[in-house]
Amino acid sequence: MEELVIITSWARFKEYLYYDQEMELLLDISRMDFSTEFLMEMNEPMRDVYHQIQLMEKGAVANPDEGRMVGHYWLRNPDLAPSAEIAQDIKGTLREILGFVEQIHEGRIQGENGEPFRNLLLVGVGGSILGPRFVADALASPRDKMKAFFIDNGDPDGIDRVLGQIGEELKATLCIIISKSGGTVETRNGMLEVRKAYEDIGLSFPGHAVAITQRGSRLDKLSQREGWLRTFPMWDWVGGRTSLLSAVGLLSLALQGIDIGELLQGARDCDQRTRRPDILANPGALLALMWYYSTQGQGGKQMVVLPYKDRLELFTKYLQQLIMESLGKEKNLKGETVHQGMTVYGNKGSSDQHSYLQQLLEGPDNFFVTFIEVLKDRQAFSAYMEDNSTSGEYLQAFLLGTREALTQKGRESLTITVKEVNAYTIGVLIALFERAVSIYALLVGINAYHQPAVEMGKKAAGQAIQLKNNIVQFLKSHPGKKFSVPELALAIQEEEHQEMLFKLLLHLTINTEHGVNMEPGHPWSESRFFVDGPIS
Amino acid sequence: MEELVIITSWARFKEYLYYDQEMELLLDISRMDFSTEFLMEMNEPMRDVYHQIQLMEKGAVANPDEGRMVGHYWLRNPDLAPSAEIAQDIKGTLREILGFVEQIHEGRIQGENGEPFRNLLLVGVGGSILGPRFVADALASPRDKMKAFFIDNGDPDGIDRVLGQIGEELKATLCIIISKSGGTVETRNGMLEVRKAYEDIGLSFPGHAVAITQRGSRLDKLSQREGWLRTFPMWDWVGGRTSLLSAVGLLSLALQGIDIGELLQGARDCDQRTRRPDILANPGALLALMWYYSTQGQGGKQMVVLPYKDRLELFTKYLQQLIMESLGKEKNLKGETVHQGMTVYGNKGSSDQHSYLQQLLEGPDNFFVTFIEVLKDRQAFSAYMEDNSTSGEYLQAFLLGTREALTQKGRESLTITVKEVNAYTIGVLIALFERAVSIYALLVGINAYHQPAVEMGKKAAGQAIQLKNNIVQFLKSHPGKKFSVPELALAIQEEEHQEMLFKLLLHLTINTEHGVNMEPGHPWSESRFFVDGPIS
Repeated sequence: MEELVIITSWARFKEYLYYDQEMELLLDISRMDFSTEFLMEMNEPMRDVYHQIQLMEKGAVANPDEGRMVGHYWLRNPDLAPSAEIAQDIKGTLREILGFVEQIHEGRIQGENGEPFRNLLLVGVGGSILGPRFVADALASPRDKMKAFFIDNGDPDGIDRVLGQIGEELKATLCIIISKSGGTVETRNGMLEVRKAYEDIGLSFPGHAVAITQRGSRLDKLSQREGWLRTFPMWDWVGGRTSLLSAVGLLSLALQGIDIGELLQGARDCDQRTRRPDILANPGALLALMWYYSTQGQGGKQMVVLPYKDRLELFTKYLQQLIMESLGKEKNLKGETVHQGMTVYGNKGSSDQHSYLQQLLEGPDNFFVTFIEVLKDRQAFSAYMEDNSTSGEYLQAFLLGTREALTQKGRESLTITVKEVNAYTIGVLIALFERAVSIYALLVGINAYHQPAVEMGKKAAGQAIQLKNNIVQFLKSHPGKKFSVPELALAIQEEEHQEMLFKLLLHLTINTEHGVNMEPGHPWSESRFFVDGPIS
Repeated sequence: MEELVIITSWARFKEYLYYDQEMELLLDISRMDFSTEFLMEMNEPMRDVYHQIQLMEKGAVANPDEGRMVGHYWLRNPDLAPSAEIAQDIKGTLREILGFVEQIHEGRIQGENGEPFRNLLLVGVGGSILGPRFVADALASPRDKMKAFFIDNGDPDGIDRVLGQIGEELKATLCIIISKSGGTVETRNGMLEVRKAYEDIGLSFPGHAVAITQRGSRLDKLSQREGWLRTFPMWDWVGGRTSLLSAVGLLSLALQGIDIGELLQGARDCDQRTRRPDILANPGALLALMWYYSTQGQGGKQMVVLPYKDRLELFTKYLQQLIMESLGKEKNLKGETVHQGMTVYGNKGSSDQHSYLQQLLEGPDNFFVTFIEVLKDRQAFSAYMEDNSTSGEYLQAFLLGTREALTQKGRESLTITVKEVNAYTIGVLIALFERAVSIYALLVGINAYHQPAVEMGKKAAGQAIQLKNNIVQFLKSHPGKKFSVPELALAIQEEEHQEMLFKLLLHLTINTEHGVNMEPGHPWSESRFFVDGPIS
């Protein structure tokens, strides 16, 4: 198959360029190879999309499987909320956040030993932490009021590393536990590990802890019962992956010293643009339509995200969840099997040019690139490196050069440009992609707001824990006696799970907590396992 | 299409389990849905692969386009090198590294002000830094002798951030500039920015700098001319993406305090296993054959890498380059168009379960997962979280549960297990994937050791810089006069590059170094640009 070279021209660039002077945002889709007819044909389906979005924003149950409203758009514009109660709840929570932050910054709330809080430790996983961590890094500055640390996984060694970095500063560290459901196991484990670290230095955990969770959850009850410093609410009408502009993100970012008003304003402004019925004046519609054009409304296309700015490196991880968890669906709303999905990956440019650009240019043409360009290079004045050019000019040249090379090879790309990375533009970018997800999902007729399959893995993990406990219990009740995997499986009636038993046993022998030992066999799968018998 | 459920069983698991007691490595391919016939059919082509690998290890020109030998296997076993000169060069360099490291650690080489070196600052991009950074993070410990910082991109704001983190410690910081070619623009820019930072605090850069580059390169000459502390060699028979076990990785890792002897030993041991002609006894062959089975020998499959260990989070970025730059090729060795390639992405488990697992389970079935399991949980003894289970046991349960859920949905996976993360196992893992890349490339008949397309982007970037200079020169020679993009394009005879001109102009107006200003137009593409005229 010969490669198609995408025709670009100044005329096409001008025709489709979305520019918003107030938001300082540009969206250039001219290097996507859609036809004029495509956009015209999409006018009709888009009318229904706009109607659905109106209904959603007015409180329709847009997540039918879970019977929930989808209200992340209300977070930055509470007056849109479908009831006065919800609007009041959003506004009241924001006031509480700002009040609490002021008390922390002024030292009126302190650690148990009278230490002013200088650090934050966020504990969460997935939607509870990908957004807060991305924005904390994107907007970090030497003027930050508090330094943020993150426990974003249930890896004990990883937790030890973070606690090691905090070290003696733990006494001056405010710990924020984030779990919408209040029952996420990784977050619960992180909380217990951190609690132990406070207790090990003679401090009570509740005196240094804040919870963010739904009212009535297990975490909510725990924090109330133990008298944690504060508990902030999550709502069932906000999904984890769109919760950044709820307390989930706002609390820690405000504590760090970021202007969350600007963040909300950017999202609110972008939301307003992405309601416009004129496609060419609606950047969310343009973005979603490019996804739709590229995927042909079906799954399988890859979106490579290349921000040319170190501060935006974590944006891709944020987008991975937002897009893949929202769009990766087996069934559409009619119950038909569709296997929708769009793989998102990427780190940053120009680094990634020295990594996988080779494959993008020459490998399978199964992707499109989303460049993110930031016009402002740095705070300081730049020196020339060579050839009268600053390092920022070289960075832009690499972006332009890579874009050009992709076009020459017939590979499609689109480019989002912002003036600089600040709280406002981050709010704009978040709202832009949230809306594109909403629109794309409506175009292909899927529920973007549930994640039905994730339970499968959690359930199987629970079974693995149960199996491990059965093994330990059985071995302990037969001390000194050695069992092969098949013998053990037979004994505990788990013969269909011999492979999992073997893997659990290997882990049990390397980690000494339960006292399980191995007598290696040949082949290794014929090893035998035991706990020591009574000393004779 | 109905999903196929992969049949797993204890018998299949045992049949295909690769286990190496000495390397403490397991490779389980039983959840890939290949047939017994597949492995038998591959015996014949694999014979030729082994033959080619033998020739390569003996010094054949395995990278024909560039007329180069491919010798990264010699780095950990110099006696295999095809000439005594090369063997001596490898051994001599290793001795020099160890000698230099000792002098630094003992304070016999110090910063200009008599400060012992406490920190490292590595400047490089792509293959010069992805490996060193991955291993530095994977093996970081509180006992490290030096603290490492990285400038891995040409982003001036990113450079400012790193220098800001180092702060006053710059005087005690040894700067290592890594560029095989010695002419990488991002690295050159990073070097110039860092040089300025030393000079700003009254220190000479050469007194704190080390170069790693090919002899005779621009960087080599500069370092010799200026008398940098030391220059270590790279060789044309080592590609950037397989250079981790040359001075590129060894120097900084040894300075950090990592046992590079163990790293080399792990790679050497794994190399030895991956030369075995018996497929089932050769983990490199098994891995490559699983890729081949999964891709059907063609491009387009995705490999999702999920290490369940925070320390291994950067491994995927390393593998992205190693695999995608090696395998992403338009032409095979016969010159036929093949568009080979395999997309690699992933961060870490169980975090990623809360991100894109939903899509893996329900979206397009166009991938396989590579789980990486580490049996040892942490250094300390673990407390029980709940249900007599440690956080490490929960982490393993999440891995097992996710694997199980994928299998239930007919999605394939393979699992690599190591006992713990240490220098030896990192060496094993690196060598394992390097060999799998060599084998897969031979199976599909491509050159894994060049990257012909990368030049395209660099060349176009050079043109963008030239264009920018032409703009600036023209505007400066017409002070006070305003030009639209088409007018300017006409004037400098670049009418086919109006879009690029516009983008360059936007960047020039936001960054003030060249004094270019904009008079906004409506639409924005009709804005006019100028430099201020003489004050009248």
